[in-house]
Amino acid sequence: MPLSRRSILQGAVASAAALAFPARADDLAPIYAEIAKRHDETVKRIQRWIATPAVAAESLNSEEGVKQFIDLLKEAGFQSAVRVPSDGKPGVFALLDAGAPKTLGLYFMYDVKQFDPKEWTSPPLEGRLVDKPGFGKCIVGRGAVNQKGPEGAFLAALHAIRGTGRKLPVNLVLVAEGEEEIGSPHFPQIVRRPEVQQALSRCVGIEMPSAAQGADGTLEIALGAKGVIEAELVSTGERWGRGPGKDVHSSLRASLDSPAYHLVQALTTLVTPDGVDPAIDGWFEKVRGLSPAEQQMVDIAARRQSEEQLKKQLAVSRWARDLPFRDALARLTGQPTVNIEGLVGGYTGQGGKTVLPHRAVAKMDFRLVPDMTVPDCLAKLRAHLAKRGFGDIEVNMTGGYDPNTTPADSALIKAEMATYRKLGLDPILWPRGGGSWPGYVFTEAPLKLAAGHFGAGHGSGAHAPDEYYLVESTNPKLLGLDAAVRSFVDFMHQVASS
Amino acid sequence: MPLSRRSILQGAVASAAALAFPARADDLAPIYAEIAKRHDETVKRIQRWIATPAVAAESLNSEEGVKQFIDLLKEAGFQSAVRVPSDGKPGVFALLDAGAPKTLGLYFMYDVKQFDPKEWTSPPLEGRLVDKPGFGKCIVGRGAVNQKGPEGAFLAALHAIRGTGRKLPVNLVLVAEGEEEIGSPHFPQIVRRPEVQQALSRCVGIEMPSAAQGADGTLEIALGAKGVIEAELVSTGERWGRGPGKDVHSSLRASLDSPAYHLVQALTTLVTPDGVDPAIDGWFEKVRGLSPAEQQMVDIAARRQSEEQLKKQLAVSRWARDLPFRDALARLTGQPTVNIEGLVGGYTGQGGKTVLPHRAVAKMDFRLVPDMTVPDCLAKLRAHLAKRGFGDIEVNMTGGYDPNTTPADSALIKAEMATYRKLGLDPILWPRGGGSWPGYVFTEAPLKLAAGHFGAGHGSGAHAPDEYYLVESTNPKLLGLDAAVRSFVDFMHQVASS
Repeated sequence: MPLSRRSILQGAVASAAALAFPARADDLAPIYAEIAKRHDETVKRIQRWIATPAVAAESLNSEEGVKQFIDLLKEAGFQSAVRVPSDGKPGVFALLDAGAPKTLGLYFMYDVKQFDPKEWTSPPLEGRLVDKPGFGKCIVGRGAVNQKGPEGAFLAALHAIRGTGRKLPVNLVLVAEGEEEIGSPHFPQIVRRPEVQQALSRCVGIEMPSAAQGADGTLEIALGAKGVIEAELVSTGERWGRGPGKDVHSSLRASLDSPAYHLVQALTTLVTPDGVDPAIDGWFEKVRGLSPAEQQMVDIAARRQSEEQLKKQLAVSRWARDLPFRDALARLTGQPTVNIEGLVGGYTGQGGKTVLPHRAVAKMDFRLVPDMTVPDCLAKLRAHLAKRGFGDIEVNMTGGYDPNTTPADSALIKAEMATYRKLGLDPILWPRGGGSWPGYVFTEAPLKLAAGHFGAGHGSGAHAPDEYYLVESTNPKLLGLDAAVRSFVDFMHQVASS
Repeated sequence: MPLSRRSILQGAVASAAALAFPARADDLAPIYAEIAKRHDETVKRIQRWIATPAVAAESLNSEEGVKQFIDLLKEAGFQSAVRVPSDGKPGVFALLDAGAPKTLGLYFMYDVKQFDPKEWTSPPLEGRLVDKPGFGKCIVGRGAVNQKGPEGAFLAALHAIRGTGRKLPVNLVLVAEGEEEIGSPHFPQIVRRPEVQQALSRCVGIEMPSAAQGADGTLEIALGAKGVIEAELVSTGERWGRGPGKDVHSSLRASLDSPAYHLVQALTTLVTPDGVDPAIDGWFEKVRGLSPAEQQMVDIAARRQSEEQLKKQLAVSRWARDLPFRDALARLTGQPTVNIEGLVGGYTGQGGKTVLPHRAVAKMDFRLVPDMTVPDCLAKLRAHLAKRGFGDIEVNMTGGYDPNTTPADSALIKAEMATYRKLGLDPILWPRGGGSWPGYVFTEAPLKLAAGHFGAGHGSGAHAPDEYYLVESTNPKLLGLDAAVRSFVDFMHQVASS
């Protein structure tokens, strides 16, 4: 979910001058040389990882995925890396003690999204190196950018440092899960184990490796993320006690209630008459508006980003309510949402079929902003439906979590900024990503840690066919694999010296 | 579509006494003997017909289906049977001149509904004879009851009469189509050819062979059928000019309109707040209420039928608005409807996927009663949507036709009544079926003919797996294949003598 990791907002064009690499501290030069030397080894490691997809939704390879991932961690120098059971797929807890004063936390995922090989132009498990015009040589495969490529680049940074005979500048505490792609339902079980909490509590913050550059070279640092509730709203004749308990001939509609229409009517009550905003009773009670500092970030982003390019990318001609760009951006970071992901009911094949369906489902997502919480919102949603005669409609939450926030002046964010700037990149600070990730397990009590994503480089196509991660860039605005690995080396040193 | 042919209303239990066959006119006895003699030949003919399914929706076997059907007609004694081209699949026009004073019109279909062999317990194209507990030996196959079994039984009646060396008591004019299962979009082209119109104009009325007995042995005579519009309502960002033009990440919902929500809001305006009745502007303008005679038929039906049994059959605990049975029946025959057949939009697979879909579709059907017409209703639907800001939503009609009505005192209906009564069956007269069939091409100007369905016997499962037609009944309330063939012999003689 790259859109859960970094904003879709792209547009500011990094100047060529900004990409002229500044002089570096001499003592990292041997590490950079080692990175270049090990380039093929790094590519092969990522390709081997891609070859075994762990897909939680299909209960595919989760045990193989954990085992392989633990091996990768041990090879990279982690002294301990253990399988952590959960009520779902297992997680991983790993430690690398470098005897350093500072400790960096890491969040990894070893699972990938489902894929259909028929839709791919090269085999999704091969990780083939493909020339992508305008970008360069890319690894193409499921998980290439989400998240095995960037995670593999981080591991390559550890190999390179070890390869020079040096110690890491920071200790590492790593937690990983294999259910990221189904909404991390059991990740709290993994993180909240006492030994994990204790190890995490020593960290300066938690980082997930990512490929932060957009196709135009720009990148942003999001100071948190919206929360999300993914839920199926299910209307059935059985539960309603009205309409048929099985699909019947549609002529009976004259005398029977329609569970599908019941659902449609319920959905209509959840949004304002113009369809834009949530209209669930009490939904905005706990919404904290954007602070003056956050408003200022939006102002800057609106000036730096190209509205035209973004609209083109999204195939959009106007924002909701014909808002100006600045206000549309403010909503992306500050507004809760009610969204229909999918509708499924009755006959869904070619043409028509004269049935009155007994069941219809709306797949919904609800994005939450601080200080909304999942339990409170679920309760409000259920109460809203019940009050309007839709109390029979099931609200089956399938995944999600609370929003998370990380202060701009935290050591972690400062280290991100400093590292990017040394690389000649000029990140846009952004109040919070419109997408979601389970960072709340780190940012909220009791840990209250800074948490974010970091990594130079570029990739795209997460969840889609032909997902890729850039390896050898031919685009002056984009950094390739070795530069991404270097960015992780730089970042660890930056954290150590902060 | 058996529910388009006869009502789903079942419940009155035919008394055993009523099924004791009365004495018959001696001169039909040799024909009855011939029917029994040719029993296996008739079964084999139906099985061979089932083996070649013509499926218009899949453009499967339509030419083979026409050819085979024309051969069947010629073998049964039609002097001419010709392929009639249309803008869709071809129809058939056939004549059997017996030199009789009276001419009976026939409406046949040679196409069948799609099928998935995986869902069947015996191969759908084999027409295997299967023992069905509580019923007897049945032909199981696609088209067994809808409509090759009953149509094959009618053809067997022609073979039997010829087999005794006699002439038919009536002349026959037959029109057939191969697109019944997709809503008969080109049937008017076939019927409205001058030579077909001229031949039909000589007929006392039009009959489609059917298996009219419900599982409990009861049957009804419907004096017409509701009309129907089947249409897809399609909402897209492209047409709307709002929301995305492709599926985008759902985090963007904060600043983008949702075409799926746009559709849901439009659908909500089409029904009353309780979801039961159409609320489209002007929808009831041309609705003709039930006449006193029709109200009386509803009264009788409500007394004769078992509400409890019907509710059990439909898995229903209450009628819309908690109406009493009599009023629910009145609505089935007299009320127009707005129904959602299916909803399809965005992500429809397992679990969720965080997308904001650019497109959503509602598959709808609208049942029409006299004097509503398809063009008038389509125009009203579009005007209603446009007036409320939903003018961008496409209304793609995929099939349908006007309602049709046949007078209870027409010679055709009287002959049906008389024939059933001679068989010891006591049909319920019903104002109009809740389902639909394209009888309007016969009942409306210029032909203004009586039209209906006729045939003793039983079958079920049209459009579903394991569709069957009863061949050898072990149920005292149900008539088997030979009795069904006899009912057609009787009916033709009844028409001749009326």
